[in-house]
Amino acid sequence: MLRSCAARLRTLGAPRWLPEGWRAPGSEPRAAQRSFSSEEVFHKDYAVPNPSWNKDLRLLFDQFTKKCEDGSWKRLSSYKRGCALRVKDFQTHFLDPKHMKEEQTSKAQLFTRSFDEGLGFEYVMFYSDVEKRMVCLFQGGPHLEGAPGFLHGGAIATIVDTTTGTCAVITGGVVMTANLNINYKRPVPLCSVVVINCQLDKVEGRKIFISCSVQSVDEKTLYSEATRYASASPEISVGSCCTCVTSAPLRTGEINVY
Amino acid sequence: MLRSCAARLRTLGAPRWLPEGWRAPGSEPRAAQRSFSSEEVFHKDYAVPNPSWNKDLRLLFDQFTKKCEDGSWKRLSSYKRGCALRVKDFQTHFLDPKHMKEEQTSKAQLFTRSFDEGLGFEYVMFYSDVEKRMVCLFQGGPHLEGAPGFLHGGAIATIVDTTTGTCAVITGGVVMTANLNINYKRPVPLCSVVVINCQLDKVEGRKIFISCSVQSVDEKTLYSEATRYASASPEISVGSCCTCVTSAPLRTGEINVY
Repeated sequence: MLRSCAARLRTLGAPRWLPEGWRAPGSEPRAAQRSFSSEEVFHKDYAVPNPSWNKDLRLLFDQFTKKCEDGSWKRLSSYKRGCALRVKDFQTHFLDPKHMKEEQTSKAQLFTRSFDEGLGFEYVMFYSDVEKRMVCLFQGGPHLEGAPGFLHGGAIATIVDTTTGTCAVITGGVVMTANLNINYKRPVPLCSVVVINCQLDKVEGRKIFISCSVQSVDEKTLYSEATRYASASPEISVGSCCTCVTSAPLRTGEINVY
Repeated sequence: MLRSCAARLRTLGAPRWLPEGWRAPGSEPRAAQRSFSSEEVFHKDYAVPNPSWNKDLRLLFDQFTKKCEDGSWKRLSSYKRGCALRVKDFQTHFLDPKHMKEEQTSKAQLFTRSFDEGLGFEYVMFYSDVEKRMVCLFQGGPHLEGAPGFLHGGAIATIVDTTTGTCAVITGGVVMTANLNINYKRPVPLCSVVVINCQLDKVEGRKIFISCSVQSVDEKTLYSEATRYASASPEISVGSCCTCVTSAPLRTGEINVY
């Protein structure tokens, strides 16, 4: 069952660019509100301010939202997970059913959006097509603790993976295999806001090279640096769609990002 | 305020070896049960089977538990976080108070233990001092999803960081700065069990090199490979204690691991 992920994206008419509210040609627009609370949760865009966001995060959000006004930057929407139908379709082709029971499937949620408001990953990503640059504004909540008072190294790796993976998909389309290389330089205080600057360094044939930095809001502290190597491909097999599948979960009529 | 983390560990009489139930000389043994439910949660050892563990994880746990009988292997305990007093002490010296409000501090939980039973990271680590090898048995729950049906790349990075970080602390003592390099080869099905084999490759002066693999239970599928470079040091400054603080949160009279 080596049906390609790329073929699915083509079917959906997926562009390389994933701006806020984008949907595939001919697809139905999403309902603004659903009658079921669970549906509301899954269709809610989480990449917008909520009461847990601190002053730094709100200020940065406002600054980048302003940059979006002339179209040079775009905010990327983010949801808890794809719709049930799409999930089932995806699993049929990529997952051995023995691994997952129906009960578990129904509980599945996107890792970075599976926390209650303010406790885990609070973030929003903005992308500039002109600059080939992505910025992720991130506030790591109290349930992401490593040592007392600091973010867990895995939480930093997660937001770095999320940002670089999304950047890879946007700039390179579907991506297969990946290497993530992170240098941890300083511990990140829990509940502080950091800015992840991510850019496409170069494209060599089907190879994509991305780098990013994790900095304090005032840019005086460099917490981490990371690089991501990935290989873009029009055909993705079951065994090598790691980056693709961790970077762009599919939804009805659109591609959402983390 | 550059009081070293290493000095703290020396004060506690911390060994490089962190077996189940280890405590510092002269320290009081932990109460088996506390009267407050929150205290019970923080003092509960989560590295033992619970109803969410599937058959594969239970079988592997039993196999490694048997290996522990002759003392060649040790199971590592794992808790939600350190005691309030230790946390406060740690923060005083390593964290600018402006970053964290009391309300946030009280909600802090170890990232990998902050999920409800079965939804997130279910894992247990065993270590062989003879073989200088660590094994982490890991079941990734439905709230760790990346693409539909698969683990998020960040969740894999997190359990890899946890395992290699703990291995670094055990084999090298206190560790400063770190590089984590992960090759994602195949996507990991959600709710399946994987085995992370981690070993100390070499020690050059104060430099520690660790490598690990993430494999299926039958060892037929290699999901990821990773390396970790770290530098052991007797003196850790605020700016470079990343690996140390994300690997070995302190508790009253003992050092717990992830």
